[in-house]
Amino acid sequence: MRTNQQSLRIALFAPRGRMGQAIARAVADDDGFAIADDHGDVLIDFSAPEALRASLDRAVSAGVPLLVGTTGLDEGHDSLIAEAAKIVPVLKAPNTSLGVALLTDLVERAARVLDGSGWDVEIVEAHHAKKADAPSGTALHLGAAIERGRGEDAKEEVGRYGTGLQRETGSIGYAAVRGGTVAGDHEVMFLGRDERLILSHRAETRTIFARGALAAARFLHGKPPGLYTMRDVIDAA
Amino acid sequence: MRTNQQSLRIALFAPRGRMGQAIARAVADDDGFAIADDHGDVLIDFSAPEALRASLDRAVSAGVPLLVGTTGLDEGHDSLIAEAAKIVPVLKAPNTSLGVALLTDLVERAARVLDGSGWDVEIVEAHHAKKADAPSGTALHLGAAIERGRGEDAKEEVGRYGTGLQRETGSIGYAAVRGGTVAGDHEVMFLGRDERLILSHRAETRTIFARGALAAARFLHGKPPGLYTMRDVIDAA
Amino acid sequence: MRTNQQSLRIALFAPRGRMGQAIARAVADDDGFAIADDHGDVLIDFSAPEALRASLDRAVSAGVPLLVGTTGLDEGHDSLIAEAAKIVPVLKAPNTSLGVALLTDLVERAARVLDGSGWDVEIVEAHHAKKADAPSGTALHLGAAIERGRGEDAKEEVGRYGTGLQRETGSIGYAAVRGGTVAGDHEVMFLGRDERLILSHRAETRTIFARGALAAARFLHGKPPGLYTMRDVIDAA
Amino acid sequence: MRTNQQSLRIALFAPRGRMGQAIARAVADDDGFAIADDHGDVLIDFSAPEALRASLDRAVSAGVPLLVGTTGLDEGHDSLIAEAAKIVPVLKAPNTSLGVALLTDLVERAARVLDGSGWDVEIVEAHHAKKADAPSGTALHLGAAIERGRGEDAKEEVGRYGTGLQRETGSIGYAAVRGGTVAGDHEVMFLGRDERLILSHRAETRTIFARGALAAARFLHGKPPGLYTMRDVIDAA
Repeated sequence: MRTNQQSLRIALFAPRGRMGQAIARAVADDDGFAIADDHGDVLIDFSAPEALRASLDRAVSAGVPLLVGTTGLDEGHDSLIAEAAKIVPVLKAPNTSLGVALLTDLVERAARVLDGSGWDVEIVEAHHAKKADAPSGTALHLGAAIERGRGEDAKEEVGRYGTGLQRETGSIGYAAVRGGTVAGDHEVMFLGRDERLILSHRAETRTIFARGALAAARFLHGKPPGLYTMRDVIDAA
Repeated sequence: MRTNQQSLRIALFAPRGRMGQAIARAVADDDGFAIADDHGDVLIDFSAPEALRASLDRAVSAGVPLLVGTTGLDEGHDSLIAEAAKIVPVLKAPNTSLGVALLTDLVERAARVLDGSGWDVEIVEAHHAKKADAPSGTALHLGAAIERGRGEDAKEEVGRYGTGLQRETGSIGYAAVRGGTVAGDHEVMFLGRDERLILSHRAETRTIFARGALAAARFLHGKPPGLYTMRDVIDAA
Repeated sequence: MRTNQQSLRIALFAPRGRMGQAIARAVADDDGFAIADDHGDVLIDFSAPEALRASLDRAVSAGVPLLVGTTGLDEGHDSLIAEAAKIVPVLKAPNTSLGVALLTDLVERAARVLDGSGWDVEIVEAHHAKKADAPSGTALHLGAAIERGRGEDAKEEVGRYGTGLQRETGSIGYAAVRGGTVAGDHEVMFLGRDERLILSHRAETRTIFARGALAAARFLHGKPPGLYTMRDVIDAA
Repeated sequence: MRTNQQSLRIALFAPRGRMGQAIARAVADDDGFAIADDHGDVLIDFSAPEALRASLDRAVSAGVPLLVGTTGLDEGHDSLIAEAAKIVPVLKAPNTSLGVALLTDLVERAARVLDGSGWDVEIVEAHHAKKADAPSGTALHLGAAIERGRGEDAKEEVGRYGTGLQRETGSIGYAAVRGGTVAGDHEVMFLGRDERLILSHRAETRTIFARGALAAARFLHGKPPGLYTMRDVIDAA
């Protein structure tokens, strides 16, 4: 499929982590990529918040783009990223699936169009029984897209239980299904008067996150310094 | 369709209630039924727990079967119903949709078969934005069917939120989606290792509850005294 | 919500047709609209292709905008519409649901982003047992949006049956479910490697088409001459 | 869970076939099973119709139960199986997923209950882009369960296309979605008046068929001669 194209050399900041290993497997499956022994063409960091400073330093020193897939970052981390993005291209992504990136974009657009016309929004996600957090980071990321589309913050409604309840207008409801081995389903429901618009994504396996990271790396290669998101990757697709 | 069949005369205990009116409309649409001016062939009570004693008395005095669609009944009410059921046939139903009755039956069977083999069960229901209770009575009714199928009580998991969570083995998760004008969707998910079995029902309009009440009334007509459920109605179908 | 706003007067070209009557009911339910005795502020035509010339003439003579909801139009009709649109605003819509209009827009965007990256597209729609055509006009309309998004025509795959089959790359599959009283579900599936993006719409009742027609009428009121679509209505929302 | 239990020794008739290899992997993952070097405790045959006679001979000679997962068998093969089943236990299964076996059982029951009450039945299945047959064998197997439930044959409706269509009462509609890497979804829809009952199964990976084959083998071990199905396996669960 991909002929006459030099392989992009990927440097893994945390090669022994779960995602580091998954990316190494995805690289092994794709002739367009190779694992770099040295600094590589693009650095990928799926590690922990406390290691972010080190991966940013390494990217800046080597003058290579950085993909940050680490979750749980706070505003302090965002400032560090913004500084580094003045010198090298940096892409921050809580979820590197291209399908989820596109879903996020569509959800933002739908929320903008439907804002003010009385449609309620609910997000239902399903994951395997052992997942420790709820709602999923991706569900919250989708909720943020709805807020961007509407241009204002929304109240979260979680765990409805009891009687005498009343859904608050403009809120976003979140529900977390847990069980079995579900890799990850996300469903954003826009519930209007006598009609529903449902935008959803299903991950069949978790390998899509590794492949999406490679797509992001290819996008970053050769870009000018700046801060990028998965949306830029899909817009360039 | 239904020819040479005498109309069944329905007596409504609370003809001006929301369901009373809905049943009257369903009767008007179906040649097989008529509203009785007097005691009728079958008495239908969708009123309030505090009126139950009166409707039971009326059924016993008239010697006619009674359909109790009232919700929110407690064990004291159940004793009153059991007493009356020695004299006339009584059917108690928290949900009179035939589709939901069949779903309940299938869910009980699935829970019995899958018991002990590591499948997690989650119930997701969706209703309009103004519904005051969560989970829906029907969702809890489905949960009770799972417990019957397994032969033991299950812990309810509602409103998962936060980090460090761990789904408890054997528990039943409930999630309530609220928004728009949804008449009522119920989805029971059996989540196993690499596979899922999903049993679901969608009410397109609330008229199905009135029509199901009429089917229950027809079933009750001519039956011996005793306590019946919607499952008997579908078994007889 | 709608205060100090004069009612928009709707003239119905075919007031006794099924949609004409539905729109009259929607007008009766909404203070923002009234049925016009004379030419009104906006003319709405849900009739038949052979009556199009007359409704266009009436709109041009009266100098009022026209909403054309008639289906089954051909290129000759499109030319007539284009001529009239030089003089008055004309909006042509095979489906006047705002939710479907938004779905169409999102599907086009998704198809553009995913074009060339190996995602297959399938459209599944469900309607009541008596629907006479398959696929639904709306399903074909969604297929046309995918073609616009990709910038090229796509082969239709319908009615897969037998052995030795092979899905053709780039084709769009259509499947029509028929049964019961389903008002209209449409599901566009983008099926990729290990992930799926599903964009769907459910009409709970057919009243949404009448209300969407009124929203289109309000949009048209005061617009300059030209040819419009439901997409313009949602973009203006 | 499985303590103090001797491993069941599985003999594979076609160890190098796709399913033979999958079963070998499933055995390697489960302490309760081992691959037999000789005749084993249970023989499993997922090969081709023309090899059936040989696998039956081998099971009869060795006096061990046989699981036949081969598809495409005709009535002649069924006669051979019936003969062998007089001497050893034989289980024939076109699909060895326990979830699908349970779904099949529930679908038969639902069809029996709803028979004659005006519910339409449609089966929609989705598989990866390279699947060569449509509808899937499992979809047809589900259709046969509906016929058993109703006690009569049903007309198949496939590939609705065009205008002037009319769904035939009592028929079963089949639709095949093809694309991406879908392991296998099956959805049986009972479409009634204003309500729907939907029974569905999703295979997340194809390993479930190998694990289901092992569950069937364990069931067969120690059984008297006779003809068995996956339904017996789930009934015994």
